[in-house]
Amino acid sequence: MANKATRLLNTQPSVIASAAVGGKKENQGPLADIFDKINDDPYFSADTYEQGESHLQKQSILHCLEKVNLQPQDIEVLFGGDLLNQCVGTTYGIRSFEIPYLGIYAACSTMSEGLLLASLFVDSGITANAMAVTSSHFCTAERQYRFPLGYGGQRSPTSQWTATAGGALIVSAHSQPPYIRGCTIGKVVDMGVSDANNMGASMAPAAFDTVKTFFEDTQMKPDDFDYIVTGDLGKVGSRLFCELMQQSGTDISDKHKDCGLMLYDPETQDVHSGASGCGCAASVLCGYFIPKLKSGEIKNILFSATGALLSPTLNQQGESIPSISHLVWLSNGTTV
Amino acid sequence: MANKATRLLNTQPSVIASAAVGGKKENQGPLADIFDKINDDPYFSADTYEQGESHLQKQSILHCLEKVNLQPQDIEVLFGGDLLNQCVGTTYGIRSFEIPYLGIYAACSTMSEGLLLASLFVDSGITANAMAVTSSHFCTAERQYRFPLGYGGQRSPTSQWTATAGGALIVSAHSQPPYIRGCTIGKVVDMGVSDANNMGASMAPAAFDTVKTFFEDTQMKPDDFDYIVTGDLGKVGSRLFCELMQQSGTDISDKHKDCGLMLYDPETQDVHSGASGCGCAASVLCGYFIPKLKSGEIKNILFSATGALLSPTLNQQGESIPSISHLVWLSNGTTV
Repeated sequence: MANKATRLLNTQPSVIASAAVGGKKENQGPLADIFDKINDDPYFSADTYEQGESHLQKQSILHCLEKVNLQPQDIEVLFGGDLLNQCVGTTYGIRSFEIPYLGIYAACSTMSEGLLLASLFVDSGITANAMAVTSSHFCTAERQYRFPLGYGGQRSPTSQWTATAGGALIVSAHSQPPYIRGCTIGKVVDMGVSDANNMGASMAPAAFDTVKTFFEDTQMKPDDFDYIVTGDLGKVGSRLFCELMQQSGTDISDKHKDCGLMLYDPETQDVHSGASGCGCAASVLCGYFIPKLKSGEIKNILFSATGALLSPTLNQQGESIPSISHLVWLSNGTTV
Repeated sequence: MANKATRLLNTQPSVIASAAVGGKKENQGPLADIFDKINDDPYFSADTYEQGESHLQKQSILHCLEKVNLQPQDIEVLFGGDLLNQCVGTTYGIRSFEIPYLGIYAACSTMSEGLLLASLFVDSGITANAMAVTSSHFCTAERQYRFPLGYGGQRSPTSQWTATAGGALIVSAHSQPPYIRGCTIGKVVDMGVSDANNMGASMAPAAFDTVKTFFEDTQMKPDDFDYIVTGDLGKVGSRLFCELMQQSGTDISDKHKDCGLMLYDPETQDVHSGASGCGCAASVLCGYFIPKLKSGEIKNILFSATGALLSPTLNQQGESIPSISHLVWLSNGTTV
């Protein structure tokens, strides 16, 4: 598949450990059991929410390492990033670990990009292992991207709730499921959506572009997979994504799952269009899908989290919202 | 060199093209001739400085592609990032190219990280080629990190001037110098410096940590290199870096060059401690060092740009400034 965005991984490396950390709201939803650690305190015992998000990342990493009895110095490279300006949630969270670190930015697609890079590094022998981590926090995202917390403004029906959550995982040589079978590097997609309260609509075209690219590059079909998983398209974005796929001739409506629609209970937790944030996709991948792929309860998924690459500054300048989606194929087995 | 941060590249890929773009001030300095394109207009024909920075990135990419008669669709992966919140300089700059894109964040070390990733991807066969791009812009950085442009505040003697510049390069299979011989992935280093007007002091420990790691991992010496190049330590940071190296037993004082001290004329251009920004290191690497490595005028350099990973928010919360430095060994030849 020369010069294509999709690559199949020759050695099919393994995700040997994953961990998910959440907050109070995440513990009240249908996926409460997936979390290795819950913090009821939105400050995570820190002085500020931003420092709290760093603690969240640190916890994600420590819980993940613990599962395979590794220490930070055993990790050869760490890919991390988050939604905060200059990705400080990650920087301050990992500061004490002294792990060789490559910062990444893909907004809410960060876990996809981190897992993708970790997989490629191990598969091609650059490193023997690689870790990926990301997080999001309702309070830090809200006041950076939208309004001060005390503002009390109305949230539009299309808006989503940034999850206070994080996820970390370790990729290592082929040993046990889940295996990483392939990946597709996304590209920036912009269909002109400029409503910052409707991230789902801006991101759906990116998910469509990447998933369609994967199917074209591999000649595989939706039926080859249990689920096609997006990160946080939410209600609006999910519907648009499925419609775009349908219009292109591929029906994925019975295969699509969105982490943003899984994390919270729509009846009891008022999150409008769903959950969002790097931590939404990351925690659901790390705490829900990876364990089920490991056990074999789920056989094959495409994990294609999306990220809206806007900034408040550019949005205020009237720019539209470009998005991106990176895809990873995870499998319980080594053959389809 | 198992479990070390340094890797020697087996296939020694080539930088086959590089381009540098600058602004009015950069065109008035001692390196005016290194730029493929100069824009006297700080808006780069756009409506805002941020959109202008996107144009700067776009120009960098186009000039680079032109040098080897390639089109955007010929590039298999693009690594990019910048200093703007959510790296929007890059996102909007590359939006129209439809190149598979992996966003990175390493502050002013971004070109190091991009070149490092591009090199590893090509060396290990993940892609046949890879591009790295980054930029900075005085106006966008000033008003995001410090004060509104019209503020007219005093700049401290330790402060640096963010370059309005960008650089792009393409890595491909071993064919011609310069070759990428090795790289060292940095880690987050924080010695407790919290003065946001003294980036040099916060970043010097990161440069020291990474360069020292390279020498320990490879058992090479400063004399093996023509220059040990940092990105923007400036006057203060450069002195501290050399002192730290000296204290550890390695004298690099006659080998060290800092892009931030090369870009502007200290006599005629009042930049206090020197130039800074992703574009400073990138333009000097792409427009000065790479051509000289190609011709053989320079034989071997270590390029170890540094990045201060702070954000104004965390700095205002009283946090110190962590930094990072990624290193790439570039060579005119294939043996030392």
